Amino acid sequence: MSNGNHQLHTLVVRVENKAGVLARVAGLFARRGFNIDSLAVAPVVDESFSRITIVVDVESAPLEQIVKQLHKLVNVLDIVELSPTEAVERELMVITVRSDAIDELKALTQEFHATWLDDRSGQAMISISSFPARVEEFEERLKPYGIVELQRSGKIALHRLPD
Amino acid sequence: MSNGNHQLHTLVVRVENKAGVLARVAGLFARRGFNIDSLAVAPVVDESFSRITIVVDVESAPLEQIVKQLHKLVNVLDIVELSPTEAVERELMVITVRSDAIDELKALTQEFHATWLDDRSGQAMISISSFPARVEEFEERLKPYGIVELQRSGKIALHRLPD
Repeated sequence: MSNGNHQLHTLVVRVENKAGVLARVAGLFARRGFNIDSLAVAPVVDESFSRITIVVDVESAPLEQIVKQLHKLVNVLDIVELSPTEAVERELMVITVRSDAIDELKALTQEFHATWLDDRSGQAMISISSFPARVEEFEERLKPYGIVELQRSGKIALHRLPD
Repeated sequence: MSNGNHQLHTLVVRVENKAGVLARVAGLFARRGFNIDSLAVAPVVDESFSRITIVVDVESAPLEQIVKQLHKLVNVLDIVELSPTEAVERELMVITVRSDAIDELKALTQEFHATWLDDRSGQAMISISSFPARVEEFEERLKPYGIVELQRSGKIALHRLPD
């Protein structure tokens, strides 16, 4: 995710909310040796459908082939590739860190407009929701304090509003 | 996700960040006919590993079998089942709605401590990061205005801080 040498693409795939659909989508990338950097899937309004945001590490040419093959999968409704200029991208991270320097941590939380969730037993839990590079930066700034556990949601992307 | 008849379990799976791992994990659920309700996967601090929060719709007994089989998968490091009482759960949603009643929408955004991202061309984009039931409730409250597009991150879960 932070590797500047890789080319990351964001795909939005709408699928039917059925057992096995996610496995088939992920399997298609796997068979071609492409690593999924992050993936977020959840039902949409009508819970018979789900929307997946996939960030994948690929070159452009084979990505076109993957998109063609995705279209052929049963239960896949449509696929859109969203470039950073057409998309609004956000990510969520919840992180537990050692809280020895609690005043510094609280200041950092404020600086990043993050949310202080809890602190107890020498640990603090903080949540941040922002654009992915900002989440990455927050994680980097927290590293020196000692990260106990973290989960990032993976990037989620929507179309930018029309002009 | 909002279906009260189903039994939803939250699993946290740590895996090596390699092509095909996600497909194998998702495939294991698919082969047994279990639907993955939501899944969020992203690299952790050391980017050679990823952490997956999976919400799956199952009965307890077969879940134990799935966990046993997950343990046997190559590149899977460990699996924890987190009950709501042991976990802090959060979810992110970005949603685009029709903005005909913009004052009402802004009031609703404030009420839910959500973030107003943009409004243009008769549409508004709003982001919310909260506990999953609250995100669900916000989505329900926005429905009457007309949802254009939405993506939820799926639930992410961390261990509650020790007492």
